[in-house]
Amino acid sequence: MKAAIDETHGLELRSWVDSANDPTTDFPVQNLALGMFRARGDRAAPGAGIGDQIVDLTAAAESALLDAGSAKLIEACAAEGALNPLLEAGPEPMRALRRALSRVLRDDTDEGRDARARAATLLVRASDAEHLLPVRIGDYSDFYSSVHHASNVGRMFRPDNALLPNYKWVPIGYHGRASSVVPSGQRVYRPFGQTRADSEAAPQFGPSQRLDYELEVGAVIGRGNALGTPIPIASADAHIAGLCLVNDWSARDIQTWEYQPLGPFLAKSFATTISPWLVTRDALAPFRVPLADRASEDPAPLPYLADATDRSQGAFAIELSVWLTSARMREERSAPFLVSTGRYESSVYWTPAQLVAHHTSNGCNLRPGDLLASGTVSGPAPESRGCLLERTWRGTEPLTLPTGETRRFLEDGDEVVMRGRCERAGFRPIGFGECRGIVSG
Amino acid sequence: MKAAIDETHGLELRSWVDSANDPTTDFPVQNLALGMFRARGDRAAPGAGIGDQIVDLTAAAESALLDAGSAKLIEACAAEGALNPLLEAGPEPMRALRRALSRVLRDDTDEGRDARARAATLLVRASDAEHLLPVRIGDYSDFYSSVHHASNVGRMFRPDNALLPNYKWVPIGYHGRASSVVPSGQRVYRPFGQTRADSEAAPQFGPSQRLDYELEVGAVIGRGNALGTPIPIASADAHIAGLCLVNDWSARDIQTWEYQPLGPFLAKSFATTISPWLVTRDALAPFRVPLADRASEDPAPLPYLADATDRSQGAFAIELSVWLTSARMREERSAPFLVSTGRYESSVYWTPAQLVAHHTSNGCNLRPGDLLASGTVSGPAPESRGCLLERTWRGTEPLTLPTGETRRFLEDGDEVVMRGRCERAGFRPIGFGECRGIVSG
Repeated sequence: MKAAIDETHGLELRSWVDSANDPTTDFPVQNLALGMFRARGDRAAPGAGIGDQIVDLTAAAESALLDAGSAKLIEACAAEGALNPLLEAGPEPMRALRRALSRVLRDDTDEGRDARARAATLLVRASDAEHLLPVRIGDYSDFYSSVHHASNVGRMFRPDNALLPNYKWVPIGYHGRASSVVPSGQRVYRPFGQTRADSEAAPQFGPSQRLDYELEVGAVIGRGNALGTPIPIASADAHIAGLCLVNDWSARDIQTWEYQPLGPFLAKSFATTISPWLVTRDALAPFRVPLADRASEDPAPLPYLADATDRSQGAFAIELSVWLTSARMREERSAPFLVSTGRYESSVYWTPAQLVAHHTSNGCNLRPGDLLASGTVSGPAPESRGCLLERTWRGTEPLTLPTGETRRFLEDGDEVVMRGRCERAGFRPIGFGECRGIVSG
Repeated sequence: MKAAIDETHGLELRSWVDSANDPTTDFPVQNLALGMFRARGDRAAPGAGIGDQIVDLTAAAESALLDAGSAKLIEACAAEGALNPLLEAGPEPMRALRRALSRVLRDDTDEGRDARARAATLLVRASDAEHLLPVRIGDYSDFYSSVHHASNVGRMFRPDNALLPNYKWVPIGYHGRASSVVPSGQRVYRPFGQTRADSEAAPQFGPSQRLDYELEVGAVIGRGNALGTPIPIASADAHIAGLCLVNDWSARDIQTWEYQPLGPFLAKSFATTISPWLVTRDALAPFRVPLADRASEDPAPLPYLADATDRSQGAFAIELSVWLTSARMREERSAPFLVSTGRYESSVYWTPAQLVAHHTSNGCNLRPGDLLASGTVSGPAPESRGCLLERTWRGTEPLTLPTGETRRFLEDGDEVVMRGRCERAGFRPIGFGECRGIVSG
């Protein structure tokens, strides 16, 4: 089933939830992002973001505001404490839920009038809720799909051979750690680990001195595939339930010492933060674009990665930004510092559908809720580099914060917030909410 | 709680299940390995191996043969379709279950006499049952702990620099793929993937021509740890619920082309087979030994990996073997061909407890059922090399099978069976059962 623009995307639609009509919100009635939350110590509940509120979907179902099929799926998600049953159901039930929710939250429908009368039961203020992981992640895979990131890191470590020969053929990726994926807002502990100074023979064990973030975009898998049955590129997009933001926290000094020959391990597995909302494939339909980053001399993708539709609309137009606030900035009530800003679609070399097709090309099974992250999204300009390793060029070009403090890597108390926003003329902009984490010593 | 030798290990114990008294069985009454199985199309059920039979633990609990605590845990495992609730309960409930099971299956106890009278209800012939994964694996991590394997592979690819400088300091590992871990007996499909001949500029996509197995020993995590709270080396052993055998199937040609710079990915994620039985930490108590493989010039482990008890008894005495049967050998009724045989404790450089301490040293959380595999177990002798890449030295020294066929790597129809057995004077030998897989094109 193709993602398509329909009546739920209408620019003119307004919600009876006032804050959803604010032009700066990430969650107008055209978004309808899905997540899991807990309010007042209750059990985990499925919800949808609307302005500065969350719609309690269980309450909506119990109030007979949703169709029977959607209500049953919401009940299953509530029982499981995650959106996986909905993802497993596939694109059509997800779209049916979207249409039902749109009618419940608009100000021009019967369902909207009913819902408004029950607002006290249905709505929870987002700032009063605890955001949970939206999905149970069976496996987390992390790619390396920004060619600028791969080139920058390559230039630092292999000046003569920046981009390896496989890069433009293979969507390079590796398995990440699923257990330590945490929702936005959860504290991140500075990891201990082995590091070795260039001048020393023996390594030391202690807290990482080169703690970094990585700005990424994650694709969340909807319906999966059976082991041994690859997903062809032409149908790969339909297996993506939606996107979220990912901060793949990284300890560069641990990584440098441990990563040969099997790749990053403990340098990454101490924490990965994701934004709490699944921005669905349907919500993103108006923002589909071709990938910007193929040069004419680049090799054509091998047939298992090539598809005309994917080429013309396999990427998403997302403006990404990273903001940093130090402990001292909080004390001095200084506004967050914009560390970088860039665009997803002009930074990556492979589309999410290509990642799905590649990942399953060997028969590997994806399961609903699996997370396929892009890898650090860095664009061509220095201002669009998606991690401090690149932004400060390995610490040689420190950033100066508004307080006069400098940063090569993250210090204890630093808070990192990532944001993503989709805009296109003729459509209401939508966003991802925050992907936020604060570093603790 | 230390693993200890107690009355359940007595050499003189016999079972009322005759086949358990056969000296060649892997499952005497001193083993009591745990697993999940399905018989006659029923639901997944927890079971214990005894000779050539499986004890249906749900039936044992319903027959009031187990204590109330054990019965409740078995019920939870049956509901979950995996042994995770028992693992999560920790060492004491696991030992209580072992003691209860020992009394149920011995021929000299009241419980044993009761059980024998109900044998028709309690026992399922193992060959009539479908073996399932014993645990739900949240994350699968794969290490590189055999120094002989690391040295051999290094010699092939980096003759001047076989063992990298980090090897004797860092228990090198990487994240594996959890979704494609399958139980013994399940068919393994030859993966497709990108490979590139040395003489070519462009890669090709097609079936792997260098399919391999890897003989490994896996540690299954019992109680886990909270994110941000490392497990100290002194208590790491108590977090290991038991061991199983692991075949980490590998496509060497895909691996060679994809693995730089982030490590193996699709070369491994198409399938990993594990033996169906969790041989518990308590069952293994008599077979604890020191690691054999530290030379006097090797650096001392860093303090977070050093523990006197671990040094003296952190490893396990396990004889491992790999058997191959080609399609033609099956036609000709030829006996399986012994490809390699070696010993775990004289092959690995790091103990399972060191892997646990290292894995969590950065704050990474382990969860009950997580699998930490050793990496290919290769010993110092050519006959003890745990994968074909080493055994045939990259295909340059092919094996000759009894039919006259030769093997550099695996062909379609080849069946690989791994076995592991613990022996020590004064104790009944125990084993792991088979880790079996057949390659399909």
